[in-house]
Amino acid sequence: MWVYEKKLEYPVRITKPDVQMAKYLITQYGGPDGELSASLRYLNQRYSMPTNRAKGILTDIGTEELAHMEIVATMVYQLIKDAPIEVLKEAGLGGHYAQHDRALFWVDANGVPWSAKYIAALGDPVADLHEDMAAEQKARATYENLINLTDDPGVIDALRFLREREVVHFQRFGETLVHVQEYMNSKKVF
Amino acid sequence: MWVYEKKLEYPVRITKPDVQMAKYLITQYGGPDGELSASLRYLNQRYSMPTNRAKGILTDIGTEELAHMEIVATMVYQLIKDAPIEVLKEAGLGGHYAQHDRALFWVDANGVPWSAKYIAALGDPVADLHEDMAAEQKARATYENLINLTDDPGVIDALRFLREREVVHFQRFGETLVHVQEYMNSKKVF
Amino acid sequence: MWVYEKKLEYPVRITKPDVQMAKYLITQYGGPDGELSASLRYLNQRYSMPTNRAKGILTDIGTEELAHMEIVATMVYQLIKDAPIEVLKEAGLGGHYAQHDRALFWVDANGVPWSAKYIAALGDPVADLHEDMAAEQKARATYENLINLTDDPGVIDALRFLREREVVHFQRFGETLVHVQEYMNSKKVF
Amino acid sequence: MWVYEKKLEYPVRITKPDVQMAKYLITQYGGPDGELSASLRYLNQRYSMPTNRAKGILTDIGTEELAHMEIVATMVYQLIKDAPIEVLKEAGLGGHYAQHDRALFWVDANGVPWSAKYIAALGDPVADLHEDMAAEQKARATYENLINLTDDPGVIDALRFLREREVVHFQRFGETLVHVQEYMNSKKVF
Amino acid sequence: MWVYEKKLEYPVRITKPDVQMAKYLITQYGGPDGELSASLRYLNQRYSMPTNRAKGILTDIGTEELAHMEIVATMVYQLIKDAPIEVLKEAGLGGHYAQHDRALFWVDANGVPWSAKYIAALGDPVADLHEDMAAEQKARATYENLINLTDDPGVIDALRFLREREVVHFQRFGETLVHVQEYMNSKKVF
Amino acid sequence: MWVYEKKLEYPVRITKPDVQMAKYLITQYGGPDGELSASLRYLNQRYSMPTNRAKGILTDIGTEELAHMEIVATMVYQLIKDAPIEVLKEAGLGGHYAQHDRALFWVDANGVPWSAKYIAALGDPVADLHEDMAAEQKARATYENLINLTDDPGVIDALRFLREREVVHFQRFGETLVHVQEYMNSKKVF
Repeated sequence: MWVYEKKLEYPVRITKPDVQMAKYLITQYGGPDGELSASLRYLNQRYSMPTNRAKGILTDIGTEELAHMEIVATMVYQLIKDAPIEVLKEAGLGGHYAQHDRALFWVDANGVPWSAKYIAALGDPVADLHEDMAAEQKARATYENLINLTDDPGVIDALRFLREREVVHFQRFGETLVHVQEYMNSKKVF
Repeated sequence: MWVYEKKLEYPVRITKPDVQMAKYLITQYGGPDGELSASLRYLNQRYSMPTNRAKGILTDIGTEELAHMEIVATMVYQLIKDAPIEVLKEAGLGGHYAQHDRALFWVDANGVPWSAKYIAALGDPVADLHEDMAAEQKARATYENLINLTDDPGVIDALRFLREREVVHFQRFGETLVHVQEYMNSKKVF
Repeated sequence: MWVYEKKLEYPVRITKPDVQMAKYLITQYGGPDGELSASLRYLNQRYSMPTNRAKGILTDIGTEELAHMEIVATMVYQLIKDAPIEVLKEAGLGGHYAQHDRALFWVDANGVPWSAKYIAALGDPVADLHEDMAAEQKARATYENLINLTDDPGVIDALRFLREREVVHFQRFGETLVHVQEYMNSKKVF
Repeated sequence: MWVYEKKLEYPVRITKPDVQMAKYLITQYGGPDGELSASLRYLNQRYSMPTNRAKGILTDIGTEELAHMEIVATMVYQLIKDAPIEVLKEAGLGGHYAQHDRALFWVDANGVPWSAKYIAALGDPVADLHEDMAAEQKARATYENLINLTDDPGVIDALRFLREREVVHFQRFGETLVHVQEYMNSKKVF
Repeated sequence: MWVYEKKLEYPVRITKPDVQMAKYLITQYGGPDGELSASLRYLNQRYSMPTNRAKGILTDIGTEELAHMEIVATMVYQLIKDAPIEVLKEAGLGGHYAQHDRALFWVDANGVPWSAKYIAALGDPVADLHEDMAAEQKARATYENLINLTDDPGVIDALRFLREREVVHFQRFGETLVHVQEYMNSKKVF
Repeated sequence: MWVYEKKLEYPVRITKPDVQMAKYLITQYGGPDGELSASLRYLNQRYSMPTNRAKGILTDIGTEELAHMEIVATMVYQLIKDAPIEVLKEAGLGGHYAQHDRALFWVDANGVPWSAKYIAALGDPVADLHEDMAAEQKARATYENLINLTDDPGVIDALRFLREREVVHFQRFGETLVHVQEYMNSKKVF
């Protein structure tokens, strides 16, 4: 189970509303390679991992991705929450306003709702860890695109933090893959 | 952010494998009215709630639904993890085995992947709280169906706990609706 | 069965084309909380309602929502049918033109096709009527957003009518819920 | 607008429950080539048809398909409504029961929810009428498969009626295509 | 099996980048009536065709549609590959950039991912060939819309070629329908 | 463009019909980690690869996956094409028969239609190649599950061939990743 702690893993300091950026950034909330995809992928896969260490790593990272999801949500909401209707229309978010007002929703940057088809679980630890390493690379690339789409220093600062964490997770999944392969080889021997 | 605590909100005591029940139960993991739907619905809506009290209740319940999701996951995995392939085939889970081995996945009882189309956020607190009350009623009804589908006392015991929590959440959302409506009326007056 | 009567339930008087508004308004035709969702939800649920009165109310309202769907369709088509291609492009409807010319389609304001995942039927009359009350609240909120997105008096007039009907339906579903709960309690007693 | 008349276009006489058949038959309610697809396809396309005659035919047939949808719904519900849980489980409808009890839902025979992706509207009358003719052929073929899947005379009788209507609609769409092409040619001349 | 030949079926000569047009054109790559839909529809249906001639025609046309898919891909990529981020944003492709940089993806003009729900296979040759004829009409209409959306002579030239091929395929499917119906009638006689 | 060669890349020798296996095997035709996913993933990504060598490898493997798709299609069709209706019903393919007779369709083992949401293209060669390596691992694991689901030597023989090819592709994508990273580093230096 999880205990909520009323603070963000990393502080968000948005200096000005930017509806256009909110439209793009929401992909890391409800898009294919966003934080929801990451968290649900890892928390789901952990059950079929063969060692407690691997289960623990997936639980840890899956939980941290929940925190990242909250950081992204906070950013998107701050960028959009006070925007006049005309500004939303100009940024291509008139449709979002019609359907959700200024609320968040689990959609990508084009308004396509999140689907579990974005993620995978094979029950094969080697396949699943490759899926996870690929996921971290895709999230990293998406954060780099998002950094290119804005010049707000507060947004960039948080995106850089999130991008860095994906790089760290990629490395941890790589180590876990080695660990799992060693474990599976050792089982075959004895 | 969330801190993971390595225990279940409610203990799961499955006395025997039951693949058929796993196939049905998974709907409360990745189906339309399951715990993922509940958690993502509330954690997403909280940003646009008008008072801290309403935000807090949605955060609390959304966090508890994460714990329920973990209870359901644990049950499904215990029911399925040691099943021989032939048993999976007989229970209509041969397709699940082909695609996921015995791993969990975010699907309903027919194998349809979870979609954010199942949930809503209007940004209108009255509409959103009605959506939440309806969600709790739908989850309650689903748990009642699931209780009818099994005779394993351990499964029934956990399902009754989860059903009870939905009834409590329904009441809390009802109270929150009254609170929010009072708040909105008071704002109109002053 | 249904008999078609060649008139709109409420007259539509669009004074000028407005492609931008058509793009938003289409969500009440083919979006998550639109008239198609409403009609298909009620006409589907009626079979498992426990009394003839409840069945009749769902049939009546489901049939009226078909009429509302036609009102929205008429409005969208009038707003868009004579628009030059350049105007469609500027309003973000170039993609719609590529795929549908100026025809209607069952999509939301972002072009996402309608899905039955938007609606529910639990076969539990209490859960289903809460779903219906929530649906009316969500439709009401969407109409309010749409009213804010236009200043055409003819569009606003029709939207206000449609919004009012959702409020009336919400009340009728509330009364039906009381009726159904009384019926179910009476059955338990005798 | 539509007026509901409390009778079926064709009487349904189910002589015995048959849950297995209900599972298959539901595809003509909420599956790709079913009556919902048909009705929504025609009622949507009528707006962009170039003549009143073509608009009228699409309205007529679209309205009749609503009646067919009701016939199929009535059949499915009669086949399933009194079935014990064990019978539902054996017929592969345990998942349906978990999620919907014995209520209807807009799904295909595998439980996949209906999507507007099944249908099309190009706004080009020639393309749209070919789409409609193909739709009638696909519905006809599906009814033939369904007839092969049952030996209940009451079910077969209604399915034959529905199959016949698709053949008639196919012919009417063929005539409408000729009419529309003549109209379009005549417009080019003058 | 297929052998790749490193040339396009028809040369693509794009004279200038046009991100806006890329956004629309991508519907013929990954949209409902595009070349992927066409190719997968025919290559899938060929197995259940009753004669070798019909199987051969579906294989031929399905293979040619793969080549058309490549032509469209080449055009879209040339129109978009060197575009500055600001130009992508202005054309409504900021969301595409966030998620895919300037890579291609199987989406329609609104960013909705391709789904097999767009196509059909009934296993009934008459129904399937009507589906194919309708598909060619829908593709033709889409190419006509796309031609209206651009004034680049190189783009128009390739689109005209692709449009022409759809007309030819429509005729070939019509002939195949006659052939299949004759074959089926002859089988009934003897 | 592609030239069709009328032979399978690997011969298929099915010794007996096996409808149950067809139901599972179809996931490698139209399921999340099947051959369609593989082919469309690689053929789409090649455009944004930075070197001709990388483009060539993606084209080669993407083309070979088309051939694998054809092998799987041939197997599924041979396993199912002569099956009596009762056998289809017993194997859980009664729904497939209702909707598709014995034709193939792009679905997973539960009848869920293929979606481009299963695959990714980031336009970042490192991320895309990790996605491809993960895809090969997931396909390998699926083939291993399928081998466990049958005892037909002809089916197993073809599945082993397909599994082997995924291992080879995994290695080739690994080499391509090294090549691409060296290329990108060299560009930074000079």
